[in-house]
Amino acid sequence: MNTRLEAALAVSTVIFALRSDPGSGLSSLWLPLVRRTRDPYLGRWALPGGGLPTDEGLAGAAARALRETTGLTPKYLEQLYTFGDPGRSPGGRVVSVVYWALVESGEAALAVEDENVHWFPADHLPPLAFDHNRIVEYALWRLRTKVEYSRIAHAFLGETFTLAQLREVHEAVLQKALDPANFRRTVESSGTVVDTGRRVAGVPHRPPRLYRYNDSVPAAEPGALEPAIG
Amino acid sequence: MNTRLEAALAVSTVIFALRSDPGSGLSSLWLPLVRRTRDPYLGRWALPGGGLPTDEGLAGAAARALRETTGLTPKYLEQLYTFGDPGRSPGGRVVSVVYWALVESGEAALAVEDENVHWFPADHLPPLAFDHNRIVEYALWRLRTKVEYSRIAHAFLGETFTLAQLREVHEAVLQKALDPANFRRTVESSGTVVDTGRRVAGVPHRPPRLYRYNDSVPAAEPGALEPAIG
Repeated sequence: MNTRLEAALAVSTVIFALRSDPGSGLSSLWLPLVRRTRDPYLGRWALPGGGLPTDEGLAGAAARALRETTGLTPKYLEQLYTFGDPGRSPGGRVVSVVYWALVESGEAALAVEDENVHWFPADHLPPLAFDHNRIVEYALWRLRTKVEYSRIAHAFLGETFTLAQLREVHEAVLQKALDPANFRRTVESSGTVVDTGRRVAGVPHRPPRLYRYNDSVPAAEPGALEPAIG
Repeated sequence: MNTRLEAALAVSTVIFALRSDPGSGLSSLWLPLVRRTRDPYLGRWALPGGGLPTDEGLAGAAARALRETTGLTPKYLEQLYTFGDPGRSPGGRVVSVVYWALVESGEAALAVEDENVHWFPADHLPPLAFDHNRIVEYALWRLRTKVEYSRIAHAFLGETFTLAQLREVHEAVLQKALDPANFRRTVESSGTVVDTGRRVAGVPHRPPRLYRYNDSVPAAEPGALEPAIG
């Protein structure tokens, strides 16, 4: 009952952003990975992460890993799950506290990328180090479930957006086309977005309206322990 | 990026069962706590838990703490959250992976109780060690949210049950009276319970029907990593 063994502890982050395919113009989910520079899994791609300094909270360590890897700040950050199977690391037992984060698309375009940091399409990953493929699959499931009942899609967008942009986020996350008229009705009746009264500049005929998120609507999880950043 | 500090790691479990008040006959949520036998917080009540042996998974360690403390086996066990604020333990940084569990009421009545293991009403706890009051509050929020959209209420009941018993579980968890006719309609239309064709024995006039859970209905969280036990 009172034994507390010392275990190696890591904090890792699954970072999602939307990127457009230059050819088709369609958006899909991408995430940054880092190349391992030591054993085990030397040379393999892995989730960004690291240890837990004694004066840093878990969410703080997750946001720092994100910042150090990509130079970005997340608009949404939430604890995903803690993974601790005895066999998950060949180098000895490691317990990984994993967070997931959403980054705004415009900012994600500015992300650092070099020989050891590279972005991959989330649904077409190479074999990753440790159990990181399974972790990404679980994070994708959580994101896709949550985008249907919570108001997190706007984390991929800027301060204001058109309903077409918001629909494209949902389509990219859920990987299916949504009927524009139905989507508009559902969003408008939900009360989660507010018409700013402004329209997209530079569009001559019927420029689309600009919306912002309605901050007065409570988030779906009032009991969440760490509120979303941003 | 590659530093992994050694951190003290604990696995704790919030264990819920329903108990009837002998006077009113009404059920409410109770949980077992253990008295701390050393500093910090010597003598205070705390969640059952302990360390993580190198050959044991996180869920396995959580179920073992439950078994060692109460002599019980959970019907439902799920990871709740990992707590790791730097200041949460005065004796040095401890990261706690917390699970929550539901125990069948009939079995809970057989639980071990002695000077150092005691059951308390979940909504009326004394000041606990560490941040354990906050952890219990979060577990209560998760249970109350989940009982409304998922089929976990039957974990408090035996193999078969009447609709009145199932309604009493919901009433005890949610702490509000539910209209019997509405509850019956909602449950029957959900398809989550099956009429066994049998009735409660020993009731002379119109004995209530016995139901069981419909295992063919998928659980609410197909992506959950550790399926419910039992």
